[in-house]
Amino acid sequence: MAEALESDANQPAANAPAQTEPVALIAGGGQTPLYLADRLEARGVPFFVAMIEGDADPALRAYDHMMINVAALGRLEAALKARRIRTIVMLGSVKGRPDINQFRPNLTTLRILYRLVPALRRGDDALLRAVITMMQNQGFTVKGAHELEPTLLVPQGQLGQHQIPAKAREALGCALEGATRLGALDAGQAVVAIGRRLVALEGAEGTDAMLARVAHLRSIGRLSQKPGGVLVKLRKPGQDMRVDLPTIGPETVKCAIEAKLLGIAAHAENSLIVDRPATIAAADAAGLFVVGIDPSQSDWER
Amino acid sequence: MAEALESDANQPAANAPAQTEPVALIAGGGQTPLYLADRLEARGVPFFVAMIEGDADPALRAYDHMMINVAALGRLEAALKARRIRTIVMLGSVKGRPDINQFRPNLTTLRILYRLVPALRRGDDALLRAVITMMQNQGFTVKGAHELEPTLLVPQGQLGQHQIPAKAREALGCALEGATRLGALDAGQAVVAIGRRLVALEGAEGTDAMLARVAHLRSIGRLSQKPGGVLVKLRKPGQDMRVDLPTIGPETVKCAIEAKLLGIAAHAENSLIVDRPATIAAADAAGLFVVGIDPSQSDWER
Repeated sequence: MAEALESDANQPAANAPAQTEPVALIAGGGQTPLYLADRLEARGVPFFVAMIEGDADPALRAYDHMMINVAALGRLEAALKARRIRTIVMLGSVKGRPDINQFRPNLTTLRILYRLVPALRRGDDALLRAVITMMQNQGFTVKGAHELEPTLLVPQGQLGQHQIPAKAREALGCALEGATRLGALDAGQAVVAIGRRLVALEGAEGTDAMLARVAHLRSIGRLSQKPGGVLVKLRKPGQDMRVDLPTIGPETVKCAIEAKLLGIAAHAENSLIVDRPATIAAADAAGLFVVGIDPSQSDWER
Repeated sequence: MAEALESDANQPAANAPAQTEPVALIAGGGQTPLYLADRLEARGVPFFVAMIEGDADPALRAYDHMMINVAALGRLEAALKARRIRTIVMLGSVKGRPDINQFRPNLTTLRILYRLVPALRRGDDALLRAVITMMQNQGFTVKGAHELEPTLLVPQGQLGQHQIPAKAREALGCALEGATRLGALDAGQAVVAIGRRLVALEGAEGTDAMLARVAHLRSIGRLSQKPGGVLVKLRKPGQDMRVDLPTIGPETVKCAIEAKLLGIAAHAENSLIVDRPATIAAADAAGLFVVGIDPSQSDWER
């Protein structure tokens, strides 16, 4: 583990698999897609970006790309085939559920919709599993972002210079239990606990919005102004490792600081950390701990 | 049940117990305390209001009252003894956890704090149970609001003119399961589900703020603009019937309409409805269903 802690994400990952085949990034929102694109570029891996309209970071236009939306997935298939791309990585958040009323469907779209609609009515996992299955049925291989860039995966143990303080352990235990049970509901990946109290649970709003809520509840005196509490983010039990893994990054640290938390625990080997050097530097500077934790183990005191 | 559905909360509750002894209302925020005070006044029950500073509705000043805060609970005891009041009802929400740094403690406060501090670190239920135990140790009887005013209790079955529509049943099943599991965590009482997806879970922010979040996520396109989904509000398994029962009222209906929900399900015989005529009239006018449901039964289709 010492090696994992000392690895430098600014260098090509020593243990990154040699990816010589071109790969397509299906890019939703957030910082992960651009970070992975930059890393692949630095390593000389050829790639193509399918930017999800309204979600993907416009900076991705710097790379070979196309804009996509659910109403025109057929065009994506053609673009990938023209580039002889057989490997796909899906990453980043998708804000909206496609609004079926806005479709002007063609035959390909209808065929896709027919497969997606039952999934649209269930939780996130079902939708993403349906998309993966659909891509695989078209002959594509779907990989996880961490398979292309292993430094993205959160290792087990302390990541920054700050240990888990004794006063955070009660909240950490409460939040780990809360996030585990929340995940079982396929509702969200993240919770915040302060002391023995679960004060925020992530639903459709996402982690950053949940942390902003905690900051707001502090500002109106509904939660104590005193710094305390932790963010825990876990992979949901049924969640495919290849898509929508829980992710932390510099923005998460910024929101956690504004929410006056003591630190962040992410699912070891089951969550992503975007731009680990910047994330850890921000946490270190603010006095926050960042750890990778296996919630099934209890080798830390509750 | 037909009788329960036809009872008129504007009339004295026929089955209200004859309360001739004076009673103290310890009043937090929200509409419940003023509603109960008005009902007791109409029925000629003598009462005294202890208004929690910063939480209680200022309109309660119209009645015999005093302002209280946790730092001066000793004054409350003296006021109740001077009025020979032995029965207490605690109702309404308390926004803030008392900030221990703001105390200028006297001996009584220190004695109270000594008992409360462990509870402050746990969930809501523990805090409220500690307050009840403390009051009982002082010789007071603590009653639930519905024991004084039975029309406050949500009965089983359909409350307004709208039945649960077929398209809401999937969300209702999902939300009932979600609220049940959320309650087991002592985190919150309410959730919103749309289709088979749990989109919002109540933490420290409260039900109205959670509904405002759903309305916001619709407005930014993160949730479908199409009306759908339900609010479910359940009593937590460990929750004392005498305090902080889940409550719905006209404000809940207003927020549910803004969140474009199809209806509201509240825990039958285990939750309160404030101003039932106004609540149901607002729901009826907007096309929302309102039902009392026993989550342990499954006599409705999932």
